[in-house]
Amino acid sequence: MRIDLNSDMGESFGVYTMGYDEQVMPFVTSINVACGFHASDPRNMLHTVRLAKKHNVAVGAHPSFPDLVGFGRRNMAATPEEIKTDTIYQIGALWAFCQSEGVKLQHVKPHGALYNMAATDIRIATALAEAIQSVDPGLFMLCLGKSQMVEGAKKVGARYVEEAFADRAYTNEGTLVPRSKPGAVIHDIGLVAERVLSMVKHQRVTSIDGVEIPIVAQTVCVHGDTPGAVEMTKLIRKRLEENSIVVAPFGQAG
Amino acid sequence: MRIDLNSDMGESFGVYTMGYDEQVMPFVTSINVACGFHASDPRNMLHTVRLAKKHNVAVGAHPSFPDLVGFGRRNMAATPEEIKTDTIYQIGALWAFCQSEGVKLQHVKPHGALYNMAATDIRIATALAEAIQSVDPGLFMLCLGKSQMVEGAKKVGARYVEEAFADRAYTNEGTLVPRSKPGAVIHDIGLVAERVLSMVKHQRVTSIDGVEIPIVAQTVCVHGDTPGAVEMTKLIRKRLEENSIVVAPFGQAG
Amino acid sequence: MRIDLNSDMGESFGVYTMGYDEQVMPFVTSINVACGFHASDPRNMLHTVRLAKKHNVAVGAHPSFPDLVGFGRRNMAATPEEIKTDTIYQIGALWAFCQSEGVKLQHVKPHGALYNMAATDIRIATALAEAIQSVDPGLFMLCLGKSQMVEGAKKVGARYVEEAFADRAYTNEGTLVPRSKPGAVIHDIGLVAERVLSMVKHQRVTSIDGVEIPIVAQTVCVHGDTPGAVEMTKLIRKRLEENSIVVAPFGQAG
Amino acid sequence: MRIDLNSDMGESFGVYTMGYDEQVMPFVTSINVACGFHASDPRNMLHTVRLAKKHNVAVGAHPSFPDLVGFGRRNMAATPEEIKTDTIYQIGALWAFCQSEGVKLQHVKPHGALYNMAATDIRIATALAEAIQSVDPGLFMLCLGKSQMVEGAKKVGARYVEEAFADRAYTNEGTLVPRSKPGAVIHDIGLVAERVLSMVKHQRVTSIDGVEIPIVAQTVCVHGDTPGAVEMTKLIRKRLEENSIVVAPFGQAG
Repeated sequence: MRIDLNSDMGESFGVYTMGYDEQVMPFVTSINVACGFHASDPRNMLHTVRLAKKHNVAVGAHPSFPDLVGFGRRNMAATPEEIKTDTIYQIGALWAFCQSEGVKLQHVKPHGALYNMAATDIRIATALAEAIQSVDPGLFMLCLGKSQMVEGAKKVGARYVEEAFADRAYTNEGTLVPRSKPGAVIHDIGLVAERVLSMVKHQRVTSIDGVEIPIVAQTVCVHGDTPGAVEMTKLIRKRLEENSIVVAPFGQAG
Repeated sequence: MRIDLNSDMGESFGVYTMGYDEQVMPFVTSINVACGFHASDPRNMLHTVRLAKKHNVAVGAHPSFPDLVGFGRRNMAATPEEIKTDTIYQIGALWAFCQSEGVKLQHVKPHGALYNMAATDIRIATALAEAIQSVDPGLFMLCLGKSQMVEGAKKVGARYVEEAFADRAYTNEGTLVPRSKPGAVIHDIGLVAERVLSMVKHQRVTSIDGVEIPIVAQTVCVHGDTPGAVEMTKLIRKRLEENSIVVAPFGQAG
Repeated sequence: MRIDLNSDMGESFGVYTMGYDEQVMPFVTSINVACGFHASDPRNMLHTVRLAKKHNVAVGAHPSFPDLVGFGRRNMAATPEEIKTDTIYQIGALWAFCQSEGVKLQHVKPHGALYNMAATDIRIATALAEAIQSVDPGLFMLCLGKSQMVEGAKKVGARYVEEAFADRAYTNEGTLVPRSKPGAVIHDIGLVAERVLSMVKHQRVTSIDGVEIPIVAQTVCVHGDTPGAVEMTKLIRKRLEENSIVVAPFGQAG
Repeated sequence: MRIDLNSDMGESFGVYTMGYDEQVMPFVTSINVACGFHASDPRNMLHTVRLAKKHNVAVGAHPSFPDLVGFGRRNMAATPEEIKTDTIYQIGALWAFCQSEGVKLQHVKPHGALYNMAATDIRIATALAEAIQSVDPGLFMLCLGKSQMVEGAKKVGARYVEEAFADRAYTNEGTLVPRSKPGAVIHDIGLVAERVLSMVKHQRVTSIDGVEIPIVAQTVCVHGDTPGAVEMTKLIRKRLEENSIVVAPFGQAG
């Protein structure tokens, strides 16, 4: 049994710092590195790739809508062609830093509003998959489990993995409870760790209505931008290893 | 005998168009594609790489200081580390479009103020050479002939070519006459074509003071942003071919 | 009887030029000046205000979503608070150039996607009206006739004028035929001029279905970004003056 | 006897926070608000103006070179015309937020590299003074004492004040010891407070070489971006008030 733990990183910008990259890095196995459209800059991208290399963590690109002031969190009516080309650009930018550090680029995970839109809009999901596929067919598309992102990847024939969220509640149908609803985010880190363990060991998790539902994921998303997140990630990692689960980058599987 | 003709391209941005890319493309052999810092955007970069592919023209990156409103023409007191990382980022962005089109990236030529500063400042020239070398040691650095750029490339062990300018006057020492001086730019296209021919056939050109000086170049820069430039480029190409000179990308040489 | 003719101007950016500002300026009475978010830059804003002053044309701000690469044409899920503050910022930026030239700022007209969204979304229309009102209650909000923009202005107590479009077809209900529909844009400049004349003299225009419908407008929008637009604007102005209609900025009315 | 204490504020950007604005605001009398070119955004500008209003603190604009990723700290070879128009734009943007909050804009202080360049280059200092004067002749230009900024303001006939730095060492000639030199920044907050007191009461301060030198300032710059700065500012304010010195915005003087 194996699982990957992924986290967004490299979201500092210029003189501004964000996230607890140094503290979280030792406990995750894959990171999603901002590429300058919603956060990060070339110095920070290089620094983040080096940090990942030091900790033997796999690197992915985290492309976004071009919205620095809005941190990529605002939906934009971009065309599939605009999304595809913006994504190719950002993948390339991060690839170059991987290249300069002798690190292999493993995957691409869209950020924020782009992630959310791709999860429900097959045209956007397909544009992303085409972008990834066109740059390097070896790259994985990191998809929200059971979402249109998976359909987009399949349609294009792109490699993909499905992700679950460590600290988010699920509906009976296996979709994420929207953040606007009470109980959407689970704060009890012990409970979060047990849920992740259940996802990996039994491919099951308890829904917000108390129903056991099936869930399949090759990677679990953990947050790295709060001090609490550091403790949560440590505990998840600890519990997984105590249960003899291999915690490693999904790109090394099979 | 052989020579490469290079031109800056892909300098449109969003709804704004610049240059006569379509008209000039058939007559050059290498292009320098803007990477979004002084001009261009992901749609335009893809379009330009496709146009080059169609005409069998070699593609290079044209990185710049981050100064869109100033078109990269203003000197900036960026550190070598900032220049290096900005350059890696921009090379990668263009590389991804080349990758998606199955085109090989041939070279890197800095733009505007960055070019001018690198020509006289070994620290900047070295930062550029290190950036290029770190992304892909197969890439050429396109250097102003006899400048510090050449020294930077040598120091780092990067591949490089030296360029001459088709329509610029030279001093007795073989350096460019500054644009601020009268006679710095030669407008007579017949004269320009003969000068290029002389550079290639005899490795000589007449200085602004009427002295025959030696000049060595593997590539000659022609402009693509004025209607007159189209005629000039056509004539240069015609005269070269009439003299049985192979006009081809430098990356294909021996 | 009187009418104002307004046109978007100052949409050049850095080295890039757009529009026929010099040729159109003599024939319009109000202009909407881009403020740097979708187009323009400080040099161009100053230049445009000076040009308006020279031709005795009234100046308005033309704020947009922050989307330079998309020319402000893409819908963005910005909050009313984000729209309000972005609008205040842009009004102020243009105001300062008016101040430096001794010109009075007359109005504010949102651009592109922001205009379209405000026309149908009262929350956005209200945010715009609040922004305008908060900077200077003397400013007019330039609204699409009969749209939610008018409702937003009324709600906030902001001064406003309603605009019609010279070259756009109308439905029987008096709304614009979407650009995606055939016949949405009228290209016959003689017909366009007669329609404007009818709007002003009789407050009536013929719908795309051939029905005479009522229309009320204090200002008519003419385009300034095509060579054809210059001729169209000239003809509209000529026909209005031949009919003894006062063509003057709406801010000078009553 | 009176003095103003000024501090840079509003330098957060989007999701990123910077500075201890809330804690420092109660102890200063004037603030310099970033205008979006090196830091800040419209939401943050509004928030900062409101915070200043609440604390009865005078507001000034803090314009910069357009260099968000470099935080305006890198010299740029911008022309005087570019600097003038960029400054007009930024003053206007902040003015609009002052206007919306019913607050009077008091002054303009250039930021970072623009400040440093203006201090030694009369052409830049003059461009700044012209910008300020052209927007509103009532605005003060906040100048480094004895620098070319003062000469620029005088030349243009702009109102100005001279500033001293609370925690910086001075040469025998009364200029700032460059930050690169040891002892350039004074960290002992007790000593800093006594130096400010001496500047205000006796118009004298001890140079880095131990010489008593004359110094004239209507405002003293205190930093707001470190926790230590909060304590320093509190102590300076306390010591000034214990000595019956009026601590108030310079714009309210005489």
